[in-house]
Amino acid sequence: MQKMDIQIQDEFWNRYTELVRNTVIPYQWEALNDRIENAEPSYAIQNFKIAAGHMEGEFGGWIFQDSDLYKWLEAVAYSLRRHPDPELEHIADEAIDLIGQAQHENGYVNTYFTIQEPGREWSNMYEAHELYCAGHMIEAAVAYYQATGKRKLLDIACRFVDLINRTFGTQPDQIRAYCGHQEIELALVKLHELTGEARYLNLSRYFIDERGTKPSYFVEEWERRGRTSIWNQGTPNLEVYQSHLPVREQTVAVGHSVRAVYMYTAMADLARLTGDAKLRVACERLWANTTGKQMYITGGIGATHLGEAFTFDYDLPNDTVYAETCASIGLIFWARRMLRLDMKSEYADVMERALFNNVLGSMSKDGQHFFYVNPLEVWPDASLHNPDRRHVKPVRQKWFGCSCCPPNVARLLSSLNEYIYDVSHDGKTVFTHLYIGSEATFELACGKVRLRQRAALPWEGRVEFQVSLPEGGNNAEFELALRIPAWFQKGQPLLNVNGEAQSYDVDKGYAKVNRIWTEGDLAEWLLPMETTLIAAHPAIRADAGRAAIQRGPLVYCLEEADNGKPLTSLSLSNEPNLSDYLDAELLGGCVVVEGDGLVTDDTAWPEGQLYRPLSKETTAVRFKAIPYFLWGNRQAGEMSVWMRQ
Amino acid sequence: MQKMDIQIQDEFWNRYTELVRNTVIPYQWEALNDRIENAEPSYAIQNFKIAAGHMEGEFGGWIFQDSDLYKWLEAVAYSLRRHPDPELEHIADEAIDLIGQAQHENGYVNTYFTIQEPGREWSNMYEAHELYCAGHMIEAAVAYYQATGKRKLLDIACRFVDLINRTFGTQPDQIRAYCGHQEIELALVKLHELTGEARYLNLSRYFIDERGTKPSYFVEEWERRGRTSIWNQGTPNLEVYQSHLPVREQTVAVGHSVRAVYMYTAMADLARLTGDAKLRVACERLWANTTGKQMYITGGIGATHLGEAFTFDYDLPNDTVYAETCASIGLIFWARRMLRLDMKSEYADVMERALFNNVLGSMSKDGQHFFYVNPLEVWPDASLHNPDRRHVKPVRQKWFGCSCCPPNVARLLSSLNEYIYDVSHDGKTVFTHLYIGSEATFELACGKVRLRQRAALPWEGRVEFQVSLPEGGNNAEFELALRIPAWFQKGQPLLNVNGEAQSYDVDKGYAKVNRIWTEGDLAEWLLPMETTLIAAHPAIRADAGRAAIQRGPLVYCLEEADNGKPLTSLSLSNEPNLSDYLDAELLGGCVVVEGDGLVTDDTAWPEGQLYRPLSKETTAVRFKAIPYFLWGNRQAGEMSVWMRQ
Repeated sequence: MQKMDIQIQDEFWNRYTELVRNTVIPYQWEALNDRIENAEPSYAIQNFKIAAGHMEGEFGGWIFQDSDLYKWLEAVAYSLRRHPDPELEHIADEAIDLIGQAQHENGYVNTYFTIQEPGREWSNMYEAHELYCAGHMIEAAVAYYQATGKRKLLDIACRFVDLINRTFGTQPDQIRAYCGHQEIELALVKLHELTGEARYLNLSRYFIDERGTKPSYFVEEWERRGRTSIWNQGTPNLEVYQSHLPVREQTVAVGHSVRAVYMYTAMADLARLTGDAKLRVACERLWANTTGKQMYITGGIGATHLGEAFTFDYDLPNDTVYAETCASIGLIFWARRMLRLDMKSEYADVMERALFNNVLGSMSKDGQHFFYVNPLEVWPDASLHNPDRRHVKPVRQKWFGCSCCPPNVARLLSSLNEYIYDVSHDGKTVFTHLYIGSEATFELACGKVRLRQRAALPWEGRVEFQVSLPEGGNNAEFELALRIPAWFQKGQPLLNVNGEAQSYDVDKGYAKVNRIWTEGDLAEWLLPMETTLIAAHPAIRADAGRAAIQRGPLVYCLEEADNGKPLTSLSLSNEPNLSDYLDAELLGGCVVVEGDGLVTDDTAWPEGQLYRPLSKETTAVRFKAIPYFLWGNRQAGEMSVWMRQ
Repeated sequence: MQKMDIQIQDEFWNRYTELVRNTVIPYQWEALNDRIENAEPSYAIQNFKIAAGHMEGEFGGWIFQDSDLYKWLEAVAYSLRRHPDPELEHIADEAIDLIGQAQHENGYVNTYFTIQEPGREWSNMYEAHELYCAGHMIEAAVAYYQATGKRKLLDIACRFVDLINRTFGTQPDQIRAYCGHQEIELALVKLHELTGEARYLNLSRYFIDERGTKPSYFVEEWERRGRTSIWNQGTPNLEVYQSHLPVREQTVAVGHSVRAVYMYTAMADLARLTGDAKLRVACERLWANTTGKQMYITGGIGATHLGEAFTFDYDLPNDTVYAETCASIGLIFWARRMLRLDMKSEYADVMERALFNNVLGSMSKDGQHFFYVNPLEVWPDASLHNPDRRHVKPVRQKWFGCSCCPPNVARLLSSLNEYIYDVSHDGKTVFTHLYIGSEATFELACGKVRLRQRAALPWEGRVEFQVSLPEGGNNAEFELALRIPAWFQKGQPLLNVNGEAQSYDVDKGYAKVNRIWTEGDLAEWLLPMETTLIAAHPAIRADAGRAAIQRGPLVYCLEEADNGKPLTSLSLSNEPNLSDYLDAELLGGCVVVEGDGLVTDDTAWPEGQLYRPLSKETTAVRFKAIPYFLWGNRQAGEMSVWMRQ
């Protein structure tokens, strides 16, 4: 992969980058230190202080609580890379010192086992998340080194990895196991790519290759533990942990959705780095299943809260949905890796869908409240009074006891610059996956090239690229490859270079124009947005007879605040005459969609009668839809993505 | 209440009565003895054998397992009343002997505590079901005495009740408690009505009056038990057990739905027998809430499997539904008692709705398979692969570990003769609640009167009553009151007496005709049935934009066997041209409804695409609906009551 340096400069995204820097990161630091009033405590820093011997006490929070600190450090690293901040860096350095103090002589770091069950390390690979936490430490260490050049966390991580490398494997004196929650696999690839050390790649491959082999390590371990378990009863459920089959034999996405997509991410990395064709085919098959049969229109995945899991093909209920924030973030990780494996626009389409809808929607406008579950339909009373819907929150929460999602959002948004471009192996093509205003510098075969991208997304589909050649030459031959978004449905988009229409080839969903570029050349890429009604595949029972509104990459939704309740009384007119306009005041400014609808007339229902002969009396109304990612930023109320036709 | 003697003679119902007698009762005896292959064992008889000292072993099954034997005995009693059967009576007598042998010196009977926790009796009123089991013993004892004249079980029950009467109450040496599962309250009323003993009525009233008072007995007991619990964690959930408020202050149906309706049944009994106006008002308020805001169109109640409970007003999901068979049976019990309190047709309407749909549908045509949960929408794959739907079975089961429902169906169907008529207090009016062919003899103010009812329900709305006067007189003046069913929507039904139109008054939903009847008089009551599309209240989100088919008392449904899948692809045409016809072959003979529908054309969906711009292409089809109560008697497949408009 060629070198790229990309900095986001975008009216829409700067708001998020700054929100993460100015609000999310400081807020989460307060949360990690248990200083947020009326929020569930995190215990993360306290656990490290106890493990480091600075204070006495019990371990608090979930067994994987350490990972919240690591994910925060990773987000801090990305933020420092763009915005140096000595004060923040100092806080981070102190947290890293604390981690070092909690590290054992042999390299081991995990505050739960240090505090609560010393001597029982690696005894519950099925549930104890030790390698999962190690993986997040590695990711943070790599990012922090890249941002600051400081090796301390990287050294801590490498010492830990060396211990893990000695401990796990196929040799007789090693534990032939893998982690119940995949994560270290993808982290080890990052460590390999930073250091060039083959052993990290081999360790990742070992974990992937070993997973799902028979006899099952998890079952044998459970027998040895006396058939006890932290959360689960009975024999380990191997599907939940994607350990029911060797990964190359897995054909459909099953089990805990975050574990699944973290694993698929590592598989795609390994397929690329090792040229393993079977692994690649498995990735493609799992991708087709996940995004072609088990994905919500918002890019959410995971249809049930029980096990936070995938269910089965076309089962995408909108009300009992899970669609965890972390799962969509993991889907974006995976999509990014699939692009590196094969530059096909469908991977970037899914990345964009999940980012603009499920992930952005998980955070409140103030950056201090988060959804863990991202429903497509909310009835606040049902969330309160029907236990089947209790996991669906009608308003974002301050912090969660299991708070994996908020720091995951922070690290994704602060590293979004890595998701925009790729350069082909031969250094001759620049691929643009996402239309996000940015300043990018590439080391291409032709030399150094800068691209200033200006984009008006998600509100308008105008994108400009201005070429500059910082090394002074006047000409540079390279190919610009621009993703044709799946949401653009009107033939081929128009590309102008210096005001003149430019023809292009289309390859795997990318418009490719190869030419000799000159300093100051301006490419305009025109993707006019249409508000479109979308239908779901007929096998998705939950969406039958319904339509969703999409405009560009944004899925829309109806809120009670604009349309009253029950929202289910509202249906689309046969000719809905959709219109859209920018409302600069609403929710910080957004494009609103309006349309003609019909409301069931319920004035004639006698009190206390539930059923009566059908009458089709309806009243015409003009409904109003807002972008899904902005829902729930006013008072609690009903929300729905899918409307009855 | 005047004396009545009613025997069912009805083509439709005889099939069920005989099924109960010839199949259900013998089959359930085998089940109680753990002799059904591949079915979950009951342990009920074995528990009694162990408790009686005939064999050694552990207690098996649920803590309330004894009640299954009592409910079976009750069903046997009803069956013997109509069909003497010395062999069956002998088996029942032996079972009763066994119960007697398991009874303690002091009168106590409960095999769980006798076997498993002797000395811990009455220590967990919240969960241990001792009084619940006692209640079912009492009901069985009353029925068995009425059927056979044999006192043995009645004596066992009375000795037990005397112990309970000494043990519970407001005196200092008594336990001031009530049972976590209401049932004994309604049973004590039956014992009172049989024996005339006031103390049984008073004990029932004590349990009802004490319930929900503060401080909560359940919370105090839980504290004393060391905050332990069998099923629940944390502080007792008082709403689940309807003990959150004194019963007279309860306004909405909450908590476990079977507990609720059993309690409301006792409350209605007590309101009638004691003239307690506040209790009556509470019954009416709870009735209005239950049937006016929380009842499925099938007469099912209980919207969630978590706690088998009511959720809240208008929350009636069709897919994650509970609608337990026992809850609908309890609703019928309650409706019956409300009728005794006040002869209003709406009570009988609900009784009929629950009976013909939810309850009849719970049993297979062969009488050997049962639903515990009665869904309004089934997608078999979702039942298998989505844990949120795992409680919804697409096919009826042989027997359940917690098998409260099958014996409850048996005792209801074998005592259905008690649900048809009432005689007014003054002995001058005969109320007909249900149209079921039968031979009835009444002791009226005017003397003995026989009514031979012939009914063609549920297929045709023709009912005849032939009067005879067995005491030989030629004339008898009495009032015949005929329920006008809520499903009859075309003005007032026609009543002919001896071929001539007879005018009548309407009072609380009953057509009343007072006249001097002569031997052989024939009243014809004409309720022609129309197939009707029914809408649900707009606040029921789950049914928005949908319609159900009803014909007479029967709710219809679509099955995959007739209409393919996914059923959600099918919608009603604007002019559905509904037609109906008797199919003598289908499912033992039933009236089928057909109509014009539209099927979404999905042939153009590319493989692997989940969402695309809406097109409204549809194909016209003729759909076929069958009575809901007959669903699931062919292969497993999709089923749906509500159709998209």
